[in-house]
Amino acid sequence: MDVQAILSRVDHTLLRQDATRDEILALCDEGLSYRCASVCIPPSFLEVARAHTEGRLTLCTVIGFPNGYMRTAAKCFEANDAVRAGADEIDMVINVGALREGRYDDVRAEVAAVKAACEGRLLKVIIETCLLTDEEKAVMCRLVAEGGAEYIKTSTGFAGGGATPEDVALLAKHRPHGLLIKAAGGISSLEDAERFLALGADRLGTSRIVRIVKEMEKEGTYRV
Amino acid sequence: MDVQAILSRVDHTLLRQDATRDEILALCDEGLSYRCASVCIPPSFLEVARAHTEGRLTLCTVIGFPNGYMRTAAKCFEANDAVRAGADEIDMVINVGALREGRYDDVRAEVAAVKAACEGRLLKVIIETCLLTDEEKAVMCRLVAEGGAEYIKTSTGFAGGGATPEDVALLAKHRPHGLLIKAAGGISSLEDAERFLALGADRLGTSRIVRIVKEMEKEGTYRV
Repeated sequence: MDVQAILSRVDHTLLRQDATRDEILALCDEGLSYRCASVCIPPSFLEVARAHTEGRLTLCTVIGFPNGYMRTAAKCFEANDAVRAGADEIDMVINVGALREGRYDDVRAEVAAVKAACEGRLLKVIIETCLLTDEEKAVMCRLVAEGGAEYIKTSTGFAGGGATPEDVALLAKHRPHGLLIKAAGGISSLEDAERFLALGADRLGTSRIVRIVKEMEKEGTYRV
Repeated sequence: MDVQAILSRVDHTLLRQDATRDEILALCDEGLSYRCASVCIPPSFLEVARAHTEGRLTLCTVIGFPNGYMRTAAKCFEANDAVRAGADEIDMVINVGALREGRYDDVRAEVAAVKAACEGRLLKVIIETCLLTDEEKAVMCRLVAEGGAEYIKTSTGFAGGGATPEDVALLAKHRPHGLLIKAAGGISSLEDAERFLALGADRLGTSRIVRIVKEMEKEGTYRV
């Protein structure tokens, strides 16, 4: 797979707690230069990113992130507020405790409520695979699709474990027709990226792929 | 200091991403038995905790937690929604990026906005000391007080560093008259707890103190 094909699947991500405006705007510039699928940034930077990129770049943000145990009303408000601030795509985190308690109806209803709050924008649902059993991951494929979201996403990157080839393969096997997969967390090489895409991922959440491609440019082994 | 005096300063805390209802209710029972200052729990458990404790226990929750980079409107909605769901105390996280950029007015205004949304409930402001310079910690003492919050709190426990004696001493030195201190993150012994209280902390965010006292009860070295 060629490098640009990989970059076109990357949600170029900066979600560090102490990220600053300058770092976010630099991320946006990279997202534009390398023609990434989107930049994934904290909600509080949406307005400056929108003003900086003027519609030329897809803006993704995170909701109920990273712990997911906010109340549903708060997640819905946050999603709708983010859309009004310029978000094109929303990555939300499920309530992992509710899933572990077997409250599937509540988990599905929360996805559906946030989807409605997104007013047509794309919704990705982070299930935090490193905390789930394989059975729970399979159940989540169904609940995410039934809730009306477009994507199931592996990880926040904040819970001690990221995407694994085994998990992406498992989601690819169990997803209902039409549900897309985003692999995120710990993707650290072009080989990783290629493998996740080959296993069925459609998007990759990572900051490292752009960094690697920048290094290749410096070394003269790649030209945008 | 006697053990009950320490327990009376403890916000008995469970903020693990995959905490379940049963674990939260057990935490509430411990908070009642050991006469803790409060239990600190995720927003999505406030209603069941309120129904379970029926006003006999102070309920604390977290807002904009742990990364703090949500939009101010979302933090305010989340705080007010939590109050309506039964929260007596709110622990919010500042926007660390805004502080690092020197946008002090924005940081103070956000504290004031969340305080208003709390409708008179106690507000603690988490500054995430492990990410700040000593100068930034001192500035935050002033901004938190000017924003109208009751407490400055060291840490979320999710950013790789918790309360240190040095930081609590620094906050005690720089706080305006009347601003209280909550030490949180990594408090793992009664000696730790005593030291933080002696240095000027008024509250301690921890799950381990109750666990230690339960062990002492089993061993017969303490009786509630």
